[in-house]
Amino acid sequence: MIKVAILGGSGYTAAELIKILLRHPEARIITVTTRQEGTPLVAELHPSLTGRIDLRCEAFDADRLLAAGVQCAFGCLPHGVSMSTLPALLSRGVRVIDLSADYRLRDPNVYAQWYGESHHDVAHLAQAVYGLPEIYGEEIASAQLVANPGCYPQTAILGLAPLVAGNHIDRSSIIVDSKSGVSGAGRVPKMHTHFPECNESVTAYSVGQHRHTPEIEQTLADVAGETVEVIFTPHLIPMDRGIFTTIYAVPRRPFSESQLLDLYREYYLQAKFIRIVPQIPSTKDSLGTNFLDITARVVRGRIVILSALDNLVRGASGVAVQNFNRMFGFEETTGLW
Amino acid sequence: MIKVAILGGSGYTAAELIKILLRHPEARIITVTTRQEGTPLVAELHPSLTGRIDLRCEAFDADRLLAAGVQCAFGCLPHGVSMSTLPALLSRGVRVIDLSADYRLRDPNVYAQWYGESHHDVAHLAQAVYGLPEIYGEEIASAQLVANPGCYPQTAILGLAPLVAGNHIDRSSIIVDSKSGVSGAGRVPKMHTHFPECNESVTAYSVGQHRHTPEIEQTLADVAGETVEVIFTPHLIPMDRGIFTTIYAVPRRPFSESQLLDLYREYYLQAKFIRIVPQIPSTKDSLGTNFLDITARVVRGRIVILSALDNLVRGASGVAVQNFNRMFGFEETTGLW
Amino acid sequence: MIKVAILGGSGYTAAELIKILLRHPEARIITVTTRQEGTPLVAELHPSLTGRIDLRCEAFDADRLLAAGVQCAFGCLPHGVSMSTLPALLSRGVRVIDLSADYRLRDPNVYAQWYGESHHDVAHLAQAVYGLPEIYGEEIASAQLVANPGCYPQTAILGLAPLVAGNHIDRSSIIVDSKSGVSGAGRVPKMHTHFPECNESVTAYSVGQHRHTPEIEQTLADVAGETVEVIFTPHLIPMDRGIFTTIYAVPRRPFSESQLLDLYREYYLQAKFIRIVPQIPSTKDSLGTNFLDITARVVRGRIVILSALDNLVRGASGVAVQNFNRMFGFEETTGLW
Amino acid sequence: MIKVAILGGSGYTAAELIKILLRHPEARIITVTTRQEGTPLVAELHPSLTGRIDLRCEAFDADRLLAAGVQCAFGCLPHGVSMSTLPALLSRGVRVIDLSADYRLRDPNVYAQWYGESHHDVAHLAQAVYGLPEIYGEEIASAQLVANPGCYPQTAILGLAPLVAGNHIDRSSIIVDSKSGVSGAGRVPKMHTHFPECNESVTAYSVGQHRHTPEIEQTLADVAGETVEVIFTPHLIPMDRGIFTTIYAVPRRPFSESQLLDLYREYYLQAKFIRIVPQIPSTKDSLGTNFLDITARVVRGRIVILSALDNLVRGASGVAVQNFNRMFGFEETTGLW
Repeated sequence: MIKVAILGGSGYTAAELIKILLRHPEARIITVTTRQEGTPLVAELHPSLTGRIDLRCEAFDADRLLAAGVQCAFGCLPHGVSMSTLPALLSRGVRVIDLSADYRLRDPNVYAQWYGESHHDVAHLAQAVYGLPEIYGEEIASAQLVANPGCYPQTAILGLAPLVAGNHIDRSSIIVDSKSGVSGAGRVPKMHTHFPECNESVTAYSVGQHRHTPEIEQTLADVAGETVEVIFTPHLIPMDRGIFTTIYAVPRRPFSESQLLDLYREYYLQAKFIRIVPQIPSTKDSLGTNFLDITARVVRGRIVILSALDNLVRGASGVAVQNFNRMFGFEETTGLW
Repeated sequence: MIKVAILGGSGYTAAELIKILLRHPEARIITVTTRQEGTPLVAELHPSLTGRIDLRCEAFDADRLLAAGVQCAFGCLPHGVSMSTLPALLSRGVRVIDLSADYRLRDPNVYAQWYGESHHDVAHLAQAVYGLPEIYGEEIASAQLVANPGCYPQTAILGLAPLVAGNHIDRSSIIVDSKSGVSGAGRVPKMHTHFPECNESVTAYSVGQHRHTPEIEQTLADVAGETVEVIFTPHLIPMDRGIFTTIYAVPRRPFSESQLLDLYREYYLQAKFIRIVPQIPSTKDSLGTNFLDITARVVRGRIVILSALDNLVRGASGVAVQNFNRMFGFEETTGLW
Repeated sequence: MIKVAILGGSGYTAAELIKILLRHPEARIITVTTRQEGTPLVAELHPSLTGRIDLRCEAFDADRLLAAGVQCAFGCLPHGVSMSTLPALLSRGVRVIDLSADYRLRDPNVYAQWYGESHHDVAHLAQAVYGLPEIYGEEIASAQLVANPGCYPQTAILGLAPLVAGNHIDRSSIIVDSKSGVSGAGRVPKMHTHFPECNESVTAYSVGQHRHTPEIEQTLADVAGETVEVIFTPHLIPMDRGIFTTIYAVPRRPFSESQLLDLYREYYLQAKFIRIVPQIPSTKDSLGTNFLDITARVVRGRIVILSALDNLVRGASGVAVQNFNRMFGFEETTGLW
Repeated sequence: MIKVAILGGSGYTAAELIKILLRHPEARIITVTTRQEGTPLVAELHPSLTGRIDLRCEAFDADRLLAAGVQCAFGCLPHGVSMSTLPALLSRGVRVIDLSADYRLRDPNVYAQWYGESHHDVAHLAQAVYGLPEIYGEEIASAQLVANPGCYPQTAILGLAPLVAGNHIDRSSIIVDSKSGVSGAGRVPKMHTHFPECNESVTAYSVGQHRHTPEIEQTLADVAGETVEVIFTPHLIPMDRGIFTTIYAVPRRPFSESQLLDLYREYYLQAKFIRIVPQIPSTKDSLGTNFLDITARVVRGRIVILSALDNLVRGASGVAVQNFNRMFGFEETTGLW
């Protein structure tokens, strides 16, 4: 039984993580921290957790976490805050799965460019492993610090990996058009997530400027062994959860749909949470699960890949537990089935 | 052509009012005020109005409004602000339709009790007419100050008026259970109206304590000639617009459904915006219109009244224009059909 | 490990039940039947189950089920079909949890009156136990046939049980106003559940005529030891899941809110899935869980009870597994936490 | 006052058309036909029209329509039915605006290929004008038969016209990724539009095979003077109304965003219902209006065009009335503002 801490307990990913871990036979949540005033019950922050967890939140205190025997900390803090908080644990040997963006981009200059502030924990950044188990599964197993991947990037990276790994597409031709539910925007009320503003409406945002772009490109470059460029357009959809991503790419040689599906099935043969399906998936098919669904089509010689996941489970807290399982030697699907 | 001003242009009722007035053949919007900094275009506050209105918002200035020849001001300000702003116009002869709650409750003590601050424009309060045209149509025609009614109260009052007018029900037995879309909560983002919080969820709020309660009771008492008490429970529904109200009352003598429907049809014979329908209405039937739909059922001897309206049109800006039409001598349906 | 069969696998309750049972450490699904043509994979009927269950549906065949060693059958068939199908298993000793309405109403005449056809399995009807564990927990443990309760009735019965048990309210005064998500209407497309018809809209239906009415009254009469009458009004809400019920009752003596909450806490002291909460619950608080949330208010001397649950979990498949746990001697919360 | 008939009154486009025409000062609806049994009131088919139109639907009868003096018929029939019905009016001089797909594709072979049946009114097909006023405004004015355009095609064609007209992009590089509300699927209940199936979910459909593809390509070829190919991917979004289209194209020479916006503003200088906006539009901005909103972005040298409209107004019934206005010599915006 691994003793775990949740750092930053007030948001949606923390709530989802707690729900998953409460079912996990090998994890025990011993503390939940918050930057809010006071020591509210976790169930006061998340009424859905009433009767399921009795902990009170506390302020972050590395000494106390160490004293309590925390073996693994899940960081659910905003970017910027994360890299100010985690070093105190990392330097003392605690293993960390960070759900923020702070340790995802290897190059601190790229971080500074996209996040608008310089990185101030470059030492740990250098050791971080990007937490996409289907790509970096072995490194994750032995990592002290795992940078849990973003929700959008997973749909793009895993949707494209078999194509770029085999050098099957023009790497400058890629378009990633994503549609996300509103929980991806977090739990702090804003005008654009006010119900009467975003309900019954679709829009795009951060066109060509979304911070998940470099994360997609860095990982695809690892897979390809060469630079990969994507045009990434996220859209906001009036639903709670789910990301649906439509990817367009120009193949280097003609493909049929069945060839594509075979390629994907083979590439993900060992991946228990990737479902290669013949039909076009709906986000509802993976709602509440850690699955990522993918299918492929060929239109006028272009490849069209369609992928879908639940942004709070597979896109954040579920894959975090998948990483946890790898790091601590449990069956990858433990607590996630 | 009546020159009108919109005071407080940033909210949902203002946007709806502008859309209705732009189609109204006898009204011309000459100014829109805002308490926000600067002088944004109305279309910047409401992108849906792009290309339909070229005005810039300005700060409220009674002199300037008078100089511009404003004949009618629509107040879309929050309660409290309204009674601080409108006297400057009222005292100089401008006719006002106030969409806030400030002039709805005749007794300033009741206002203080429910709104938590003392009323500071008691003089004009004494002259205000409650703007429910089906009840106070004649007084509205000659009023200088019309207190536009709340959205919930209209469904309750007009749903009950035929019953209390004829002394057909026990006036201590009334239960009003209302279900409202989220736009009724206004345009300022709050946690409970954050999309991922209220979407795919129903809850009740302010049970027994909602500020529309005294407004309902005051008007029903006028209709009844005696005190009326209601138990009022509002609920928040994951949709943009619409209020559905289910009313329960104990009749003094047995009624059949057809007797009830006849009673209602007769009572509202002249009311062009009240539709007495045999089927149970959906809020979608009146979406975007100034209609209020009502039907009646009898269950185990109890009367069940079901009423529905669009909270932004009939519940606010549409009925405001209906009042405007009465005040300025236009056909009641002008611009509202 | 209990071998279970799911009868009627194509609907929403079957899908939910399969998901719960796949996580249940003491249950193994060995067959899923369907009345549809052919032998589709369960995952073809429910793409969300892809990769989680490999079974093919088959036609119902009692002999084959017996031969396979089925110990417990969950009936997810429509009413009418259920009482034609289950006797073949019941007569041969299989224990059954029936999610249809066929065995809920003790009096076959009441069944005939509300369901429009005569009951043709009166023998087993006489042995059926109504599957509400908080009321009939001991009978359920030893029952062969459990009639799983309806979704609405649970919110009404458990919301009222502490009041009628203690004779605290006028039993002729009860109003039950319920708001339900659309999945409660089942999976067969109809005009009123066509997305553009019911989305962004609220309406009531079957006012005073809903088939869950006698089910509520029968159970409350058991609790009260006397006849109880309710006026029941269901409403359709534009969301997938969740029921929120607002109950109004006239107390026999004055109550404060804290007295009410204490009464409820004591009554449900042993009930692990009933959460008595001080705040007004949202349906989202219990979404995806087997919890039923209840709070109480006092308005002008009337009692207002507010209760909420997930209609597919607590309202159907979750409580079915709760019954299964009781019937087979497992901890009540197994697989449901 | 032009006497108009609505053919096929039961669907969403008919209801929207009736609402628009009821406000139109120069049109009078004298008949509404239906293929349903009996002669239901229009308000029975569409409760929202209660109190606004008293007509009863009747079966289609060309003689009776002629005798009644119908000058313009709006066809709201399904494709296939339309080309069987309209010839009886066209051959006798009635002007027709057909909202079906039957007269949109000039080449009957293309029609047969995409719609799976041969065209059986080739004579009138040859005379039909594609009813996109911003492209074919003059031909529409004098046409007897206008083939009202599809909802998706308008967002694609008008989003691309300035680029292909000026030969600014690679005409083989175009990707059109569209997101549509569910009303676009019509009013007949289907499994994929059943509320609990499509709510809270996104999916793509008919990838590379949607029937609007040849309509887009035919019109862009007219604008370009050369063949244009598009890859078109429609998606289903959980909302009633609205289409948001994201278009990707490779420019022949570098463009800045302001150059693009200028190009579009100039191209649509006379187009009263096209709004070129600097911000990314939301579908809600044009909800309930006849506006089509467009903006442009440049991402890594690629052009990204974002366009949005209300599929029932601008996408169908609003543009039909815009065509009506042109055909009968009224100001283009009459009844649509």
